[in-house]
Amino acid sequence: VIVTLTTDFGLSDFYVAQMKGALFQQCPQVTLVDGTHDVPPQDVAAGAIAVERAVAGFGPGTVHVAVLDPGVGTDRRLLAVEVGGQVVLLPDNGLVTWAWWRIGNAVAHELSWRPQRGASDTFHGRDILAPAAGLLAGGTPLVALCGPRVESPVLLDLAPAEAGATVGRVIHIDRYDNAMTNVSRDVLASLGSAAHIGIGRHTLGPVRRTYADVPVGHPVALVGSSELLEIAVRNGSVSATLGVRVGDEVRLT
Amino acid sequence: VIVTLTTDFGLSDFYVAQMKGALFQQCPQVTLVDGTHDVPPQDVAAGAIAVERAVAGFGPGTVHVAVLDPGVGTDRRLLAVEVGGQVVLLPDNGLVTWAWWRIGNAVAHELSWRPQRGASDTFHGRDILAPAAGLLAGGTPLVALCGPRVESPVLLDLAPAEAGATVGRVIHIDRYDNAMTNVSRDVLASLGSAAHIGIGRHTLGPVRRTYADVPVGHPVALVGSSELLEIAVRNGSVSATLGVRVGDEVRLT
Amino acid sequence: VIVTLTTDFGLSDFYVAQMKGALFQQCPQVTLVDGTHDVPPQDVAAGAIAVERAVAGFGPGTVHVAVLDPGVGTDRRLLAVEVGGQVVLLPDNGLVTWAWWRIGNAVAHELSWRPQRGASDTFHGRDILAPAAGLLAGGTPLVALCGPRVESPVLLDLAPAEAGATVGRVIHIDRYDNAMTNVSRDVLASLGSAAHIGIGRHTLGPVRRTYADVPVGHPVALVGSSELLEIAVRNGSVSATLGVRVGDEVRLT
Repeated sequence: VIVTLTTDFGLSDFYVAQMKGALFQQCPQVTLVDGTHDVPPQDVAAGAIAVERAVAGFGPGTVHVAVLDPGVGTDRRLLAVEVGGQVVLLPDNGLVTWAWWRIGNAVAHELSWRPQRGASDTFHGRDILAPAAGLLAGGTPLVALCGPRVESPVLLDLAPAEAGATVGRVIHIDRYDNAMTNVSRDVLASLGSAAHIGIGRHTLGPVRRTYADVPVGHPVALVGSSELLEIAVRNGSVSATLGVRVGDEVRLT
Repeated sequence: VIVTLTTDFGLSDFYVAQMKGALFQQCPQVTLVDGTHDVPPQDVAAGAIAVERAVAGFGPGTVHVAVLDPGVGTDRRLLAVEVGGQVVLLPDNGLVTWAWWRIGNAVAHELSWRPQRGASDTFHGRDILAPAAGLLAGGTPLVALCGPRVESPVLLDLAPAEAGATVGRVIHIDRYDNAMTNVSRDVLASLGSAAHIGIGRHTLGPVRRTYADVPVGHPVALVGSSELLEIAVRNGSVSATLGVRVGDEVRLT
Repeated sequence: VIVTLTTDFGLSDFYVAQMKGALFQQCPQVTLVDGTHDVPPQDVAAGAIAVERAVAGFGPGTVHVAVLDPGVGTDRRLLAVEVGGQVVLLPDNGLVTWAWWRIGNAVAHELSWRPQRGASDTFHGRDILAPAAGLLAGGTPLVALCGPRVESPVLLDLAPAEAGATVGRVIHIDRYDNAMTNVSRDVLASLGSAAHIGIGRHTLGPVRRTYADVPVGHPVALVGSSELLEIAVRNGSVSATLGVRVGDEVRLT
């Protein structure tokens, strides 16, 4: 069984390795895959996008653990969410938002399992979520770890644009300085092929097929690998060239 | 068998992958786990803490390789240290210090095994330590790789505070900008529950249970996930807000 | 079967995990190893060196995937290159250069396999190269994925210095701020033991055995772990102390 880990722990400390140790001690046969550990510290919205990308990238039966947990030690709940034939374990702080809306048909349960020897008050990722994932990977049924169904998990103000929308939003800027938006390929299709894209003072024209459809240094709108509208500058930078920031509005006209 | 790797190689070069290649060529069935590779270059004290965290996070039978090795090519020894039912392979330059004191009951041997085809003079991690770990993972007994017992390995000036101590020290500042000290939960307990914590000009009051026991932006003293006294600023930064640095004194009164 | 991944994706996004998901969905039994993902974005020459180091570090039968792909979506080819008993899958943009020259006896084929459900126009690493590697790892013969042999893959201006050369070049500066050159141990040997090394205004004297053969803070020329001439400053920095940059000329006299 594959277990992925998505956190804001960074890679310069030993916290990721400690989670892995807890997982292996529970289930030595697990196959661990790092999602990303470089989500900006406590940026739950950025983490929510990474969680959805992890679920979308793997197949049925995968278990995902996500830890961005500024509320550790408070009474915030932990969740086990079934989505896309996979299970995601995470705090109930909005981290599930993007997978909840974008993949859909999710069912959330309270993760009520706790280790017999107790958990720390500061590191539930290592002490609860990782061993719970190890139990799932080892064959324990989800129901044995869960309390009641959670009808309304905490959700952030981060939702996909709806069909017919004329405005979208930048939700992530990646390492190449390309901007991912909340506008799906389907929403773009609902606007017809004449749709033109704009952001700030800039007009980008129609949605292109790939970066190379514009000259080097020019801005381009296309459907990126996440099946979302993406704004890029070919071999360049949307933040430097266009001044784009996460949260900026994108016009679909 | 699990083998963990802790180094100061960083992740932008190819050195970590080369160590892994050497390990897999010796033992294809090994399960590799990265500790951290982002220990500041040649900061042996920081590496020593990461090594202890790796040992503490895994179970009996795990093999750990640690490489911070500014003395490679000199006559510094290599060690195989048995501690906590696990084996740590590392240079004898103080990198074992924190595991030696904090976990205790360690036994060090000189790692005398050398590859038949010789080793480079600049990368013993790849040429000696990694294949030696592969041999251990493949079932070779430790004694077959080792020379005499080393009674006095090199130890840094980095030791846990002792019971009754009224002063401790900051030994690590993590990605969240929380400060880990050398004061264990047991030492705190020896002071009684009336103990108050201070650092620099700041008085932090008693030891709390979790970050959320103080308002956002306030400093807090608590026992962190390493079972050590930790100084934090809730959702903030000890270095920016309190001016805390590694090596700073912590008062226990 | 081991599959290594070398990219310029960085670790703060979710692209590496998505490639791994595609690989595992094709071949659940694969052993994945990260080369490096921190090649500077779209720096194909730097990536070419990382690719060679991956091949050199692993044994026969290993499959390597390398993705630095500024031309994705154009008509640039994909290649499957047999070299050193291993297979490397990568775009035909010069990324194979250093392995081609340094390891030698390489045979390149066009990688013509495409997924039945189609590939995105922006992420061939995930949609073509990773599943193709999964197929190879699962036992599909290379010939089943390939079109015609490619006699002349794209090669960068990045070649090893030849025997008798009196000038070399800095091709990489690593995390320790040591400079790797394109001058092999064999080329150095062809000059005899009286060869002296120079760079910029600096004369470094003969080639030493290890860093510790000069005092701390002094420059040193030695054969590094890649079997190439390396310029270093003992426990220091070639860029700060000597002003060395990638591309600088090295004198062998």
